[in-house]
Amino acid sequence: MAILHPDRLFPADPETRGIARRLYATISDLPIISPHGHTEAAWFAKNESFPDPAQLLILPDHYVYRMLYSQGVSMRDLGIGQTGKIDSRKIWRIFAKHYHLFRGTPTRLWLDYEFEMLFGLDQRLSAATADHYFDVIAEKLQQPEFLPRALYERFRLEALSTTDSPLDSLEHHRALRESGWKGCILPTFRPDSVVDPTFHGFRENISQLGEQTGEDTTKWSGYLNALRKSRERFKSLGCTATDHGHPTANTANLDKQEAEKLFATVLSCKSNAEQRELFRAQMLTEMARMSIDDGLVMQLHPGSFRNHNQTIFDQCGRDAGADIPTAIDYVHGLKPLLDLFGNEPSFTFILFTLDESTFSRELAPLAGHYPCLRLGPPWWFLDSPEGMMRFRELATETAGFYNTVGFNDDTRAFLSIPARHDVARRIDCAYLARLVAEHRLDEDEAFELAQDLTINLVRKAYRL
Amino acid sequence: MAILHPDRLFPADPETRGIARRLYATISDLPIISPHGHTEAAWFAKNESFPDPAQLLILPDHYVYRMLYSQGVSMRDLGIGQTGKIDSRKIWRIFAKHYHLFRGTPTRLWLDYEFEMLFGLDQRLSAATADHYFDVIAEKLQQPEFLPRALYERFRLEALSTTDSPLDSLEHHRALRESGWKGCILPTFRPDSVVDPTFHGFRENISQLGEQTGEDTTKWSGYLNALRKSRERFKSLGCTATDHGHPTANTANLDKQEAEKLFATVLSCKSNAEQRELFRAQMLTEMARMSIDDGLVMQLHPGSFRNHNQTIFDQCGRDAGADIPTAIDYVHGLKPLLDLFGNEPSFTFILFTLDESTFSRELAPLAGHYPCLRLGPPWWFLDSPEGMMRFRELATETAGFYNTVGFNDDTRAFLSIPARHDVARRIDCAYLARLVAEHRLDEDEAFELAQDLTINLVRKAYRL
Amino acid sequence: MAILHPDRLFPADPETRGIARRLYATISDLPIISPHGHTEAAWFAKNESFPDPAQLLILPDHYVYRMLYSQGVSMRDLGIGQTGKIDSRKIWRIFAKHYHLFRGTPTRLWLDYEFEMLFGLDQRLSAATADHYFDVIAEKLQQPEFLPRALYERFRLEALSTTDSPLDSLEHHRALRESGWKGCILPTFRPDSVVDPTFHGFRENISQLGEQTGEDTTKWSGYLNALRKSRERFKSLGCTATDHGHPTANTANLDKQEAEKLFATVLSCKSNAEQRELFRAQMLTEMARMSIDDGLVMQLHPGSFRNHNQTIFDQCGRDAGADIPTAIDYVHGLKPLLDLFGNEPSFTFILFTLDESTFSRELAPLAGHYPCLRLGPPWWFLDSPEGMMRFRELATETAGFYNTVGFNDDTRAFLSIPARHDVARRIDCAYLARLVAEHRLDEDEAFELAQDLTINLVRKAYRL
Repeated sequence: MAILHPDRLFPADPETRGIARRLYATISDLPIISPHGHTEAAWFAKNESFPDPAQLLILPDHYVYRMLYSQGVSMRDLGIGQTGKIDSRKIWRIFAKHYHLFRGTPTRLWLDYEFEMLFGLDQRLSAATADHYFDVIAEKLQQPEFLPRALYERFRLEALSTTDSPLDSLEHHRALRESGWKGCILPTFRPDSVVDPTFHGFRENISQLGEQTGEDTTKWSGYLNALRKSRERFKSLGCTATDHGHPTANTANLDKQEAEKLFATVLSCKSNAEQRELFRAQMLTEMARMSIDDGLVMQLHPGSFRNHNQTIFDQCGRDAGADIPTAIDYVHGLKPLLDLFGNEPSFTFILFTLDESTFSRELAPLAGHYPCLRLGPPWWFLDSPEGMMRFRELATETAGFYNTVGFNDDTRAFLSIPARHDVARRIDCAYLARLVAEHRLDEDEAFELAQDLTINLVRKAYRL
Repeated sequence: MAILHPDRLFPADPETRGIARRLYATISDLPIISPHGHTEAAWFAKNESFPDPAQLLILPDHYVYRMLYSQGVSMRDLGIGQTGKIDSRKIWRIFAKHYHLFRGTPTRLWLDYEFEMLFGLDQRLSAATADHYFDVIAEKLQQPEFLPRALYERFRLEALSTTDSPLDSLEHHRALRESGWKGCILPTFRPDSVVDPTFHGFRENISQLGEQTGEDTTKWSGYLNALRKSRERFKSLGCTATDHGHPTANTANLDKQEAEKLFATVLSCKSNAEQRELFRAQMLTEMARMSIDDGLVMQLHPGSFRNHNQTIFDQCGRDAGADIPTAIDYVHGLKPLLDLFGNEPSFTFILFTLDESTFSRELAPLAGHYPCLRLGPPWWFLDSPEGMMRFRELATETAGFYNTVGFNDDTRAFLSIPARHDVARRIDCAYLARLVAEHRLDEDEAFELAQDLTINLVRKAYRL
Repeated sequence: MAILHPDRLFPADPETRGIARRLYATISDLPIISPHGHTEAAWFAKNESFPDPAQLLILPDHYVYRMLYSQGVSMRDLGIGQTGKIDSRKIWRIFAKHYHLFRGTPTRLWLDYEFEMLFGLDQRLSAATADHYFDVIAEKLQQPEFLPRALYERFRLEALSTTDSPLDSLEHHRALRESGWKGCILPTFRPDSVVDPTFHGFRENISQLGEQTGEDTTKWSGYLNALRKSRERFKSLGCTATDHGHPTANTANLDKQEAEKLFATVLSCKSNAEQRELFRAQMLTEMARMSIDDGLVMQLHPGSFRNHNQTIFDQCGRDAGADIPTAIDYVHGLKPLLDLFGNEPSFTFILFTLDESTFSRELAPLAGHYPCLRLGPPWWFLDSPEGMMRFRELATETAGFYNTVGFNDDTRAFLSIPARHDVARRIDCAYLARLVAEHRLDEDEAFELAQDLTINLVRKAYRL
C-alpha cells in the first residue's frame, strides 16, 4: 500500500498525462536550489537531532495550526504560545484526529510526501494511526540519517538560503563556512527590523546596528553606511540576495534633505502612519541603490497585513498564522524606484504577490518590460497546485517563462522542502504538457523549459 | 427526446467523468437544505396554486428579465413595474423568442431542468414551442401536485429559510407552525430596513420597531433592546440565522457614548454619508454581539451597488436587476468586529462575496484562521458552473472544505430550487472527481466529502 | 515538416477536440471583420511594398520588442527610437537568437502563423535559421502578392478600421474611396489628442481643430461644435465608431456653466490633475451624447498607465511597450454617463478592460443589464489563448454571448491580423466545444454561436 500515487498532480487526460510523465522523469532527480526560506543555520551548524514529531512538524508550521485553529482547536491545546513543557504526543493525536481538515490543501500533499518518502509510512494518518506515526517518526528522528546535514544531502540540496536580520551575528553561518562541510547554507539580508518604523524595537534596533558597524546611526548618512557595511558582512558569508517584507509596494524618491528629515522624525517618537509608510517606501529605493552597488539581488514580498488577530498576537506573538493578504498597487507604488533604476542592466528585482489579480494586470506587464524585474513564484497561500497553475496561466503569456525565477519553498518546515519542490515540478510539467498537447509549444522546447524552470532560472536570477 | 443529458456538467475526460458519475449517484437524491433564500412563507401557509408561467417564472426572476432588458426588450413589454393587468401569454412569447440569449448561462440550465423535470417538456423552448410550453405549464400549475406544499415535499426539502424584515409580523410562519404541516419553513432575521440609514423609511421603520417591541427606539439602548426582542421573536419561530446586506464589509467598534451620539445623528435628518456608513459598520458589530448572546448564525452579503440604474429604479423600484457588484476590502473592514469576537468559539459568521478576487486573497485566508468565520458559497452571478468551480479552486487550498457551508440557492424562484442544488452538486462532484483523478484526494475521501458538502456542512453551520 | 499543427489550441480531450474541430471547420474560412486596429490607410492608398522583415515585423510591434527589452536587449540594438539608418538584418538576427523568449506567448503563435502561412517557412526560427528567414521574407515582400491590397484580399478582410485623430486630414481614406478599389478601409474617430488635457500639444490641437472646422474652439460651445463637425467628416468617409483611451472609466455630468468654466480652466495653463480628470470624464459623457445624435458606436479602452518608463519615453517616445494596466472601477466611474444615456436604445457603448478582476464583478453584470452596453473582446495582454478563454469563462454566465461583439485584433502589425483572428476563432471553438462536451449547450447551438461570434455580432455591434 502507498499514500502517494506516481501520477499525482498530472492532468487526467491520458495523452497530456503521458507528456507530463515524460517531462517529469527528466527533472525529478535534479538538485534542489532553495534561494528563499526560513530554516535555521544553527540546525546545520550544530547538526543535532530534530525534536519529536509535534515540535518538528506542527509547532513551527503555521499552515498546519492555522487550519486546526480555524476549526476550533485551541492554541493552548496545540502548545502554541506556551512557555511550559508541552505534551507532544497529545498534540500529535489532536492533529491526527483532524487530518481530514487538510483534504484538498497543499499541506496534505506535503505531509503525505514526508510521511511516505522520509519515514516510510504507508497508511493514511488518522486518529487510528496517530500513535504509530508518532512512534515511527520519533524513532527515525534519532537516527543519523535524519540529522540536518544528512537530510540536506539526501534532499540533493545545492544551496539553501536562510532569512536573517542585519542584527544577527550570523555566527552559525560563519561556523558552517569554517566547518569544512560541503553543504551550501547562505544568509539572506532581511532588514525589516531596521527599516520599518513599526517593527518592534525599531529605535533600539537601529542603535544596535550602529554599535555593530561603528557608524553613527542617529544620522541619515551613518545609518545608510551602517546598512552598507551590514550588507557587506552578509556578502562575505555567501549572501546573494536581500528580502523585504512590506505592507505595500510603495517606493519613494526623496531628495537627501527630505530623507534626512524624515529619518529624524521616524527615529523620534513623533512620526505618523503616513510618515512611517513614506520611510519604508524611501528605504526600498535606498536598498535598490545599494543593490546596484553591491550586486545583491533584491526581493520584495508586499501585501501581508501582519498579525491581523490581536488576541492571538497578544497570546502567541508574531507569525502565528494570522497574517492576511491585502490588495496591492504595484504600478503606482513601484514607479519612483523604477524611474531611478528600472533600466539598470546590473540590477535584479524580484517581485512577489499575495494578490493574484495583479499577475496579469500588473506584474506580468511590468516584468515583460523592465529589464531589472523578475516575477517571483507563487508565494504563501498560492504555493499550491491551483495557485501555481494559475500563476503560469496568468503570467506566462505576457511575461514569458524567462522573466520568472524558478520555485521558492519559503518554509521553516525543513522536511517539507523536497515535497514542496516536487509539487512545483509536477505542476510545471502539467502546465508544459498541456501546452504541448494543445500544440502551443513543441515537445523539445518543453523538455528544455522543464530544466530551465527547475534549475537554470533560479541559479541565474539569484546569482548562485 | 430530452433536454437534459444525464452527464451534464461533468468533465469530458472519461475517467474523471466516471468518478464524477459515481460520486453524484450517492448524493443526487439527498434532501435539499435551503438555509438562505427569498421564497415566501405565505405560499406554504396558504398553499394556493401558483399563477401562470410568466408570473411564476419571469416576473419574479431578475436573472431572466435583466438579460432580456440588456438586449433591448422593454420592461413595459415584460410587465415589470406595471400596475395594470398583464398579458402573460404575450410576455411568455417574448421570452421564448429570446431564449437563445441564455445560452451559456446558469439560467438556461435551471430553466431547462424545471421544464423537463417538473413539467415533462422535452423539446427546447423557442418561438415555435412557446404556446405549447405556456399551455402545459399553465395546466400543470392548477394540479394538486403543483401546490406549494406538494412541491416542497416532491423537492425533498428538509428546511427552507425565508428572509424577513424585523417589521414583518411573521404571521405566515406562525400559521405554518400551527398548521400541523410537517414542512420546515424558517424565517431569517434581515434587519437592513432598521439598521441602514439609507433604507427607504428608515426613521419610520425604527419607530415601528419600537411600537412592536414596546421599547423606546429613540434611544440607543432602547433601539438595541428592540432588536434583541425582535431576534427573540424570530428565534421562537425557528429562525437560526441573521442576514446582512451591506454596501461594504466595514465594521466599527465605537464606545457607548459615541454610538449613542451617532444613533441620534442618523435618526435626525442631518447625517452625512460617512456617518451613515459608520452606523452600518457599528450595527454589524452589535449584531455579532447579539449573535454571541442568542446563538443566531450571522451572514454578511456585502458589495452590491443597489439600484445602479436610476431610471429603472424610478420606474420599477428595487430589485429590478440593476444591482452591480463592487470591489470589497474584507481585511481592514472586518478587523474591528474580529478584534472583539473573532475568537469566540460559539460565534458563526458566514461571509459571502461578489468580488472573486477576494476568494484567494482575503476570504480563504481569513476563514482558514478565525474560528468564527465560514465561507458562504458562491453567491449571485457566481452561483453558476464556472463561478462555483472557481470558488472551489480559489478557496479550498487555503480554507479547506470544512470552513465552507454547503450551497445556498438564494432565490425567490421556488421552482428553480432543485435545479440550482442539482447544478451545485454536479459541480462539487466534478471538482472532487478531478482531485481524485489527479491523485490529490483518495476516492473514499471524495465520497465522504460529497455527503459533507451536500448536507453535513450546511446543517452544522446553520444549526439546523 | 511544419511549424503549425492543425489541432493547435484545441483541448486535448479527444471528444472535446473532435467537437472543436468540427466547429472550426465551419468558420475558419469566414471573412475577417476588423473593427478596431492600428494599421494605416496610407498603406492601402499607396499600395507600396512593405519594407524589410525587421521594419515590418519587429519595429512596429511592441509585443515583440518589450519582451526583448525585458531580457536585456537594448532599444538601440533593436533600432527603436533611432533616427539614423538601421541595420535590419542585424536586428533580425538578434530577434531570431532570442526567439525562445516568446515560448508560451501569443506573439509566438502569431509569428509562426505568419512565417508558415504567408511565407511558407517550415522550420522554427532560431539563430541558425535567421538569415534564411530574412532572405525569404525580404524577397517575398517585393512580390506583387505581398502588396497591401493583395494581402487585404488574401486575408479575406471584409472591413478594416484604422484609428485616427480628429486632426488627421484623412486624405488616404479619401483617396481610397475615390480609387475604385473594393477594399473597405474605415477611419475611427479617436479624439484623445483634443479631449485629454495631458495629451502632448493639447491647446494647440484644440486650436488646430478650430481652424479645421471653422469653429471658435476657445469657447465651450464652439469646441463641441467642432467635435460634432469632425465626427461628421469621419462619418462621411465610412467611420462607424469612436474610440476613447482614458486612464480611468470616470464619467461626469456637469451642467453647462460648470463645463464651460472647466473647459476654460484646462485650456489655460492652470488646471490641476483633478480638473484634468474631471474634464476627461465630462468629455466621455459629451461623446456619448453626440453618439446618440450621430449614431457612431462608442468604444472605451480605460486603465492603461501610459509611458510608465520615463527613461524609455524620453528616448523613444510614446507606444514603446511601457504602458502598464491598472485597477479600474467601472461601477462608480460610468454611473453619471449611464444615468443619462444607459437606457437609450439607439446607443451602443462597448467597454474594454485590462483588469480581468472586473469581468465577472463589474463588466458582465453591467452589460447583462444596460441596453446600451456591450463587452469588448479581451484586449491587449489578454488577447491570448488563456486570456480569451478566461474572458469567456468569466463573462458568459452573466452577460451571455449576445452582449459581446466578436474579436478585435487591435494591431498595427498588419500581417498578424489573420493569425490573431485564427487564434480567437480556435479559442471560441474550444470554449464552445467544452460547453457541448459537458452538455451545457446543444451542438446545433454551438454551430450557430460559432458564426455569431465570428461575423454576426461584430457586424451588428459596429454597424458594418
